[in-house]
Amino acid sequence: MFIGAQVSLYPMTSDFVQVIMSGLKALDPYRDDLRIETDDMSTLMVGAPGPLIDAIRDLFATTARNPAHSTMHVTLSRGCPGEPDDPSCRCDILAIAQNTPLAQRQLQAQEAVAEAPDMGVQIDVQFSLYVLGQDRHMDEIYGCIEFLKSSGTFLRSKNFCTRLRGDAGAVFETLRQAFLRFGPAEGHVTIDLTASANSPSKD
Amino acid sequence: MFIGAQVSLYPMTSDFVQVIMSGLKALDPYRDDLRIETDDMSTLMVGAPGPLIDAIRDLFATTARNPAHSTMHVTLSRGCPGEPDDPSCRCDILAIAQNTPLAQRQLQAQEAVAEAPDMGVQIDVQFSLYVLGQDRHMDEIYGCIEFLKSSGTFLRSKNFCTRLRGDAGAVFETLRQAFLRFGPAEGHVTIDLTASANSPSKD
Repeated sequence: MFIGAQVSLYPMTSDFVQVIMSGLKALDPYRDDLRIETDDMSTLMVGAPGPLIDAIRDLFATTARNPAHSTMHVTLSRGCPGEPDDPSCRCDILAIAQNTPLAQRQLQAQEAVAEAPDMGVQIDVQFSLYVLGQDRHMDEIYGCIEFLKSSGTFLRSKNFCTRLRGDAGAVFETLRQAFLRFGPAEGHVTIDLTASANSPSKD
Repeated sequence: MFIGAQVSLYPMTSDFVQVIMSGLKALDPYRDDLRIETDDMSTLMVGAPGPLIDAIRDLFATTARNPAHSTMHVTLSRGCPGEPDDPSCRCDILAIAQNTPLAQRQLQAQEAVAEAPDMGVQIDVQFSLYVLGQDRHMDEIYGCIEFLKSSGTFLRSKNFCTRLRGDAGAVFETLRQAFLRFGPAEGHVTIDLTASANSPSKD
């Protein structure tokens, strides 16, 4: 199993380099657990979903505490057949999810969101979950959407994606649960995610 | 068939509202052909891939001519089983692609990129193509990657995505061909795309 993300941070301020640099310090506690490589377009993070999603959450929560309008784009992937197996990506939730009925996975996901830490910063997210290499991919998608509607972070459905809103702790736990508990445990699942904070245009 | 995109523009300047507003004027010639709806996180565009990808290209090319570092995120989708059929999304390339062997589709895609207009602005892109609801999804992905390597806009492969670089005309034609000529004609195919211009960190 290979699990990771390409992450890009976009502060809408002329001072964007400084905001990105101070946001990146939030990754320091995770550098032992994750492989982190930055190029001119994104930062690759590879590792288990515990530290991986925590690191992405802390990166954006830290950035969102800056008053500037900032957004972040993340391409999350697990189980891509084109990537090598990596022992550092081992994930117990995936092993448990295998053979667990959909209704029970939905409950486990709800419980995990209820226990998420309060990060003290409100964020908006929209994302798409893709379950690949499976004939009946929409069953798992619809099951995931049912969980999202009960998660406490659901804002509304949009064409091609779902909007979440709430504290960064609950929102990123919702994303981690969607990523891990839906779609086959050994399958290829991806998320296309955009986060936003301090937007001048609220709805 | 339902075809469309969620598009977000991110200028890294304190003057971002003005840059976004002037970029959006590039969409005016396409408003008769596309359904365009903007909320606080993204702009939905629905319609046939001809005007759809041209509109997204012109939006980003116009923005990239501004000296500010700007990025754009696009979630492209065709054939999502959860969306209604929309006659405005009718696409002849998809009908032709049906029953055409992979090698021939690769050649047709190369020819289309060679004929792309020169927009006079260099951009960087990274993107992931997802073919959903099919057991053998990686065959079409690998076929598409072969085309990308011969497109003239290929920069390099990255984990989870592919980097393109070149004139906005050739780059967005490469993306349109990847979106339309690979994966089943009636299937569910999506692209997770990030574009970047005027970055201070070049590689």
